[in-house]
Amino acid sequence: MQVFSILLLVSTALCSGSLSEPRTFSPVSRGTNLDGSLPIYKNPNASVEDRVADLIPRMTLEEKVAQIIQGDIDGWMNTADPLDNTLVYNQSGLEDMMNTKAGSIWGGYAMPYEKFVFALNIGQKYLMENTTLGIPAMFQSEGLHGFTNNGTIFPSPIGLAASFNPELLSSVANIIATEAEGVGLSQIFAPVLDMSRELRWGRVEENFGEDPFLTGEMGLAYVSGLQDGTRRNVTADGPGGIRKRMAATCKHFTAYGSPMAGLNTAPVIGSERDLRTIYLPAFQRACLDSLAIMTAYSAYDSVPLVANKHILTDILRDEWQYPYWVTTDAGAVDLLISQHKTCDTRECAAKAVIENGLSGEMGGGSYTYLTLPDQVAAGTVNESFIDETVKAMLQTKFTLGLFESPYPYPDYLNTIRTPESRQVLLQIEEEAIVLLENHDNVLPLNKDIGSIALIGPQVNRVTFGDYVFFNASLNGITPLAGFQDSTKINFAQGCELWSNDQTGFDEAISAAQQSDVAIVMVGTWSLDQTLLWTPGTNATTGEHVDLSSLSLVGAQFPLVEAIVNTGKPTVVVFVSGKPVSEPWIQAHASAVIQQFYPGELGGLALPEIIFGAVNPSGKLPISFPRSVGTTPDFYNYLNGMRPVDAGMITDNDTLVFGHQYVLNSPIPIWSFGHGLSYTTFNYTNLSLDPASIGTSDNFNVTVTVHNTGLVNGKEVVQVYLSDVVSSVVTPIHKLVGFQKISLSAGGSQTVSIEVESSQLALWNLDNEWAVEPGVFTVTIGTSDETFAQATLTVT
Amino acid sequence: MQVFSILLLVSTALCSGSLSEPRTFSPVSRGTNLDGSLPIYKNPNASVEDRVADLIPRMTLEEKVAQIIQGDIDGWMNTADPLDNTLVYNQSGLEDMMNTKAGSIWGGYAMPYEKFVFALNIGQKYLMENTTLGIPAMFQSEGLHGFTNNGTIFPSPIGLAASFNPELLSSVANIIATEAEGVGLSQIFAPVLDMSRELRWGRVEENFGEDPFLTGEMGLAYVSGLQDGTRRNVTADGPGGIRKRMAATCKHFTAYGSPMAGLNTAPVIGSERDLRTIYLPAFQRACLDSLAIMTAYSAYDSVPLVANKHILTDILRDEWQYPYWVTTDAGAVDLLISQHKTCDTRECAAKAVIENGLSGEMGGGSYTYLTLPDQVAAGTVNESFIDETVKAMLQTKFTLGLFESPYPYPDYLNTIRTPESRQVLLQIEEEAIVLLENHDNVLPLNKDIGSIALIGPQVNRVTFGDYVFFNASLNGITPLAGFQDSTKINFAQGCELWSNDQTGFDEAISAAQQSDVAIVMVGTWSLDQTLLWTPGTNATTGEHVDLSSLSLVGAQFPLVEAIVNTGKPTVVVFVSGKPVSEPWIQAHASAVIQQFYPGELGGLALPEIIFGAVNPSGKLPISFPRSVGTTPDFYNYLNGMRPVDAGMITDNDTLVFGHQYVLNSPIPIWSFGHGLSYTTFNYTNLSLDPASIGTSDNFNVTVTVHNTGLVNGKEVVQVYLSDVVSSVVTPIHKLVGFQKISLSAGGSQTVSIEVESSQLALWNLDNEWAVEPGVFTVTIGTSDETFAQATLTVT
Repeated sequence: MQVFSILLLVSTALCSGSLSEPRTFSPVSRGTNLDGSLPIYKNPNASVEDRVADLIPRMTLEEKVAQIIQGDIDGWMNTADPLDNTLVYNQSGLEDMMNTKAGSIWGGYAMPYEKFVFALNIGQKYLMENTTLGIPAMFQSEGLHGFTNNGTIFPSPIGLAASFNPELLSSVANIIATEAEGVGLSQIFAPVLDMSRELRWGRVEENFGEDPFLTGEMGLAYVSGLQDGTRRNVTADGPGGIRKRMAATCKHFTAYGSPMAGLNTAPVIGSERDLRTIYLPAFQRACLDSLAIMTAYSAYDSVPLVANKHILTDILRDEWQYPYWVTTDAGAVDLLISQHKTCDTRECAAKAVIENGLSGEMGGGSYTYLTLPDQVAAGTVNESFIDETVKAMLQTKFTLGLFESPYPYPDYLNTIRTPESRQVLLQIEEEAIVLLENHDNVLPLNKDIGSIALIGPQVNRVTFGDYVFFNASLNGITPLAGFQDSTKINFAQGCELWSNDQTGFDEAISAAQQSDVAIVMVGTWSLDQTLLWTPGTNATTGEHVDLSSLSLVGAQFPLVEAIVNTGKPTVVVFVSGKPVSEPWIQAHASAVIQQFYPGELGGLALPEIIFGAVNPSGKLPISFPRSVGTTPDFYNYLNGMRPVDAGMITDNDTLVFGHQYVLNSPIPIWSFGHGLSYTTFNYTNLSLDPASIGTSDNFNVTVTVHNTGLVNGKEVVQVYLSDVVSSVVTPIHKLVGFQKISLSAGGSQTVSIEVESSQLALWNLDNEWAVEPGVFTVTIGTSDETFAQATLTVT
Repeated sequence: MQVFSILLLVSTALCSGSLSEPRTFSPVSRGTNLDGSLPIYKNPNASVEDRVADLIPRMTLEEKVAQIIQGDIDGWMNTADPLDNTLVYNQSGLEDMMNTKAGSIWGGYAMPYEKFVFALNIGQKYLMENTTLGIPAMFQSEGLHGFTNNGTIFPSPIGLAASFNPELLSSVANIIATEAEGVGLSQIFAPVLDMSRELRWGRVEENFGEDPFLTGEMGLAYVSGLQDGTRRNVTADGPGGIRKRMAATCKHFTAYGSPMAGLNTAPVIGSERDLRTIYLPAFQRACLDSLAIMTAYSAYDSVPLVANKHILTDILRDEWQYPYWVTTDAGAVDLLISQHKTCDTRECAAKAVIENGLSGEMGGGSYTYLTLPDQVAAGTVNESFIDETVKAMLQTKFTLGLFESPYPYPDYLNTIRTPESRQVLLQIEEEAIVLLENHDNVLPLNKDIGSIALIGPQVNRVTFGDYVFFNASLNGITPLAGFQDSTKINFAQGCELWSNDQTGFDEAISAAQQSDVAIVMVGTWSLDQTLLWTPGTNATTGEHVDLSSLSLVGAQFPLVEAIVNTGKPTVVVFVSGKPVSEPWIQAHASAVIQQFYPGELGGLALPEIIFGAVNPSGKLPISFPRSVGTTPDFYNYLNGMRPVDAGMITDNDTLVFGHQYVLNSPIPIWSFGHGLSYTTFNYTNLSLDPASIGTSDNFNVTVTVHNTGLVNGKEVVQVYLSDVVSSVVTPIHKLVGFQKISLSAGGSQTVSIEVESSQLALWNLDNEWAVEPGVFTVTIGTSDETFAQATLTVT
């Protein structure tokens, strides 16, 4: 009777899902079968689907709810002091935690590895050995440009994107996963695939730039680099099918990167067409195999993304058939009450999120999901939504092989900061640097130059972007240190980043005057995750740090001006997390280098570029507006957006009046895809194969690239597409393919890039994707330069 | 046979419309009936519908097409020299014009009235007496703040809106109509109902501000003021039903006011919800009885508005049942080819606009509609769309009684610039002025003050907004002239509007030092329609004049700073067409006055306010951001938009770091609804009647207002509504009612304002309007001040 009634319950719970038939199990010990055999869910050779279907019916409602509320190792460990290494834990805290919040557990703390591994082992062992079902938790941390728990820090994502090198990024992600996996983590909250189309927003540095295609390609490289492989003791290709070793977490789903007025978490304005053409493509490209997705804080078109049925259920689950774990962001469920005003109770918020979002609840809020058992009992929430959500969580865990490999590896130290990692790190530091301007080929500097002045507040510091942990910068090399062995250095800071104090200018001017060349390093700055949220600190970028101006802060611009005005050749280096708007510097500095927030070896890569040991090959993943008042300035603007009749204020303060704008220009200082080299490239023999296609055909773009200069170099072949006439207004052009190649001086290479039919599609008036017959223009170039052009006909 | 075949054709043409049965008529002389009787369409006592139905079948395809292409009096008149008064015309040009473009005729030229009336009489007589059907043309001009053909110029619409006085605006529009009607015009291209939510856009001054409700109320006042009444010789209430004397033209339909990056005609991003809740309400409120609507240049959600079937047909014609004339803007059809890239031929463009928009083609382009006869013959365009469009045009003409009253009135001079008009003008000049700041009640100035310094480039000029014609400013009174009789004046311009030259500062400082008070007048400027489009001129606002910064241009801010720093009490007057972002002035000037571009008597109204002869009563129809980088800053932002953790740069250049924004605040300097008085008001006894309503009920807000100060004054009682919890994110609050009252010192008045049920509605997830049961907050105040609050319950 007991068994029968349980079967009945299971049957009800499954009515809305696609789980397979329920199985019999012991009502007393649900973790074993009645006949003593191993339950299917514990069988590593069973399929993921079978294991999920076997496990869910064994779970109580409370266990299910605990599975979808994020726990935290601070429940049993003291995490307050990042330097503390005391290996003790709190047993009752542990039990409390595992009783209510046990599916995924936050482990994003700076602490000694020994303590971290201890904490994680304690927690995981409890779940495996002291709970009825023995479901391991996914332990989670950050890693959007390096494993934050004292792992290797790479350049911020905007810099990673500037490499235009997905293969290299994949290696980076692989290193992040390796470092995290060793200490027992199984989920990393990255990549960030928001579009950086609102530059005031503090989190621009966390993204891969302004372009959906580039973001999708870099996102896919990150996800596969992070996930591909198997955890130890897990069969790579067992009957479970797909295996991954680490769960990536694509975030923030979706459109989070365009908050109104640039204010973090503010609503995003847009239509279904914007959603489909701007915000979703990168996720669709990169995340269908990502083992997790995180929803966004904001509302899109007035519907909070955390409870957006259209996006999270209709599109993600139904259209895309996404089977894995979806989680909210920290505290995001409560925002329905406090920010969006679409709920006034925790019950309402929990119901809205589980029923519309089929997602788990992260910590950082009031744990509204604790209301779910009562709501199920009261009939206000249907348990089937909880089952679907648990199912997605288990799908992720079984795909990881987490039941077979839940623990840290004893030799974890061997997989952190290896010599191989350092090589990858140095390469992407080099490839992330973008040479923006090089008047009279002042760069590279001759190695035999007598002396250089290193000037500016970015010289003697390690400026990481956000999403690093406390003291991470101690692992970094400053530019000042990086230049030490190059030549005689005259260093003068000149000013602080955060002040208008110019008392250091005289020393800086003097340093410039005593040197052959001045290198002035200025920009923006962020802080580690501890300091960034500490009252009284300062920063100009990072999460919740939103700007109203994109110009240099404080005395930095006057410092650059003072050094340029010495008459010495002046190389300006922007170290920043987003575009800096200083058109005067473009016009007056001898050369301008963009180093988006670097990783640990950014201070080494910079002199390599400046002295020509490495030929710059980075390209801008984002356009640089002339001022905040000329934004947005993304390159793939809609036809009709950019009338230009530019005015200006001249260097001697004369006003030259125009109309768009009256005293400025909507054309960026530097546009997407721009980046100089020390060599020159030429393009010949562009062909499309075929040049005439049907509406569902792919085509190949083939072109021969010649290194026509005197030094070896890398070039990013960029393919742009324009729809010449279309039923709805389309972007003036958009990136549809790229490939980074390496060419010796005088060498050439024929490159063939396939463009998928879907890149030709627009979201039409019937709210459907359609490729419209007609003529398309295919351009090889950057977003503002044309090297070669051809016509594609679609019939 | 001939008759039969024509009947057949008519029958086909009518298949998709709702025209009544075709009638028989003479195939030779279609303007008369076979039996010699007066055709119904010529019968002033027949209904509009019957007249339309009678006339259309009589028209050839060519005549129909000519009816929907805008003509221009420059076809038979030399319009090049605005001062020329030669009364000659070109007969062949006249015939050409009337043959192909004869439905509406552009008459927006500065020229002597005698010549204008001559031109118009020639054209109209030709149509009435020399064409078969005798269909008069609507002659058209501009009048968004005054009849542009040398009529009375009122403050720019943004200023008219600042009066918050719809009744007064109605009188203004009535004057515009009277002046235009006398010289034979029947259509005025106003009001502009775009939302000023993108402040860089040049045309902000042409709108009634940032708020849909205020814009709708002011728009309705304008439309009814302009239209209501009858033309001479026309029966007011004949069997034709509704009669109007002048066609208003609501524009630009729709969403035109939020172009990307503030660039004129650039695409507008938004969803169906934004369309319904932000952009359409003012049109729906004000324009259902407007005899014409003009479509916008831009695209909304990637669909060009000129050919937007959803908006122009589904919503405007089907949902709203709008029966009148719709026209494109000048040259807008060709933009489908040159800007939107949705067509590559004139044929495609004409077909797209007529079939989706059911609208006529204005001049200024290539006259794509000339392709329609061939397209009908070729079967690519169905004549029924042309018939529907002609029908709408004729609906407007018959409603005007234009067939009965097509000509100028001989006594036209008696209706221009009357003493009564001047009184209305002066009153709205006074009510348009907004007292923004009045530290220590420095204003009003004592009439016995010894001397004032009048400083700044706005003192000795008449600064009209755009949409006035050549030399209009000659009718205006400068502030310098307006102040002449007040007290001793020390005038020093200090600087030009358009220069950084500070050589005049010494004189200005000296003038301030010699005076008891300094009044500094600075701001933006526009030009008349001739100069605005002349290369080599300069302006900072107006059509196609888009800003990248909202700060004062050139030497103006340094001038203000220099005068304030003299220590003299300094009153700053912004004369501008849009918000000026200068937070320092708010903090440091003794008082700040906003005079949006005034009309002819702005120079008189300003001293009246400053010396207290008139108590200021204007309120801001638009919020003033702290900088362009903190926009958008409209008051009715969506919940969640405005996190505030403000930083700042102090007066001594110290950087105080915050987060939203790092060195600034998203809170406006002055917000919508703000405006000070020389007296004080108090609110008591707020009540809602009823306080609990059903979802389709209206309610009344009743409150008693007390003038608690020492002088008489006018107050705008403003009612705001917040939806406390809603299914989709709603604005934090929105204006739903207002009433301007006049109160003697010590007096009080109880005001009752009805709020319509529709103001409670949101555009829900099912894409429908819905009033959701729950609690709403009703606030009396401004957008950032609360005077009284009550709770409304909807069940």
